[in-house]
Amino acid sequence: MTQNMTAPDSQLKISIRILCGDEVAMGPGKADLLDAIARNGSISGAGRAMGMSYRRAWLLVDAMNRCWAQPLVETMAGGAARSGAQLSNTGHAVLAQYRALQAGAGAIDQGPDWRALQSVLRPAPHNRQHEQE
Amino acid sequence: MTQNMTAPDSQLKISIRILCGDEVAMGPGKADLLDAIARNGSISGAGRAMGMSYRRAWLLVDAMNRCWAQPLVETMAGGAARSGAQLSNTGHAVLAQYRALQAGAGAIDQGPDWRALQSVLRPAPHNRQHEQE
Repeated sequence: MTQNMTAPDSQLKISIRILCGDEVAMGPGKADLLDAIARNGSISGAGRAMGMSYRRAWLLVDAMNRCWAQPLVETMAGGAARSGAQLSNTGHAVLAQYRALQAGAGAIDQGPDWRALQSVLRPAPHNRQHEQE
Repeated sequence: MTQNMTAPDSQLKISIRILCGDEVAMGPGKADLLDAIARNGSISGAGRAMGMSYRRAWLLVDAMNRCWAQPLVETMAGGAARSGAQLSNTGHAVLAQYRALQAGAGAIDQGPDWRALQSVLRPAPHNRQHEQE
């Protein structure tokens, strides 16, 4: 579960969000939730794995499902509300294409601009100079 | 003053932040502030142009100045605190390289993955289906 495709300890952070009206149709957290649903086979299990409530996970899934031509997550028909869920074909495709977008944008960490910035970026902030000193 | 390099009305939003310890050394808002300081010739004028207080603008400048090998913003020596400010050579260079990073990452909106996502992305969310319907 990575927030972006640059290394976790990198000083370069890239966030990609896809909007649908005022709603975030896909972003780092929603993509991680889709991965967790695929691994866990249910919305409740995915929510637990990510430390969020079932209600929060369900609302994120519902928002995603309303933003795309087809729902990204399918819940099992005829069962209890929490009985199981899986990614639809559209869900698998959207997730893979979003991860590809992240990888494409993350490639800027290999370019000359980022190397130039790194050469003058401190590892930690310099102490504040008080104005009266 | 653009939040990112994709078109303002695009459904694709890319945010690039450069971290220095726990501090944001450069990001969309700080880059726009540097542009405003270069245009206005003072921190207070830049803050006004961006609808933020002098204190808020000064704190953002102070944070940036402590994150890089050299300060990005130089205030005029010997004058009053609000008398004038300009970008240092390092400030101009860091701002240009950050804008180049944004342009590089933003180029993913020309690729096949974004076109594939757009083809199944709704312009606005579908109405919520109530669970009991």
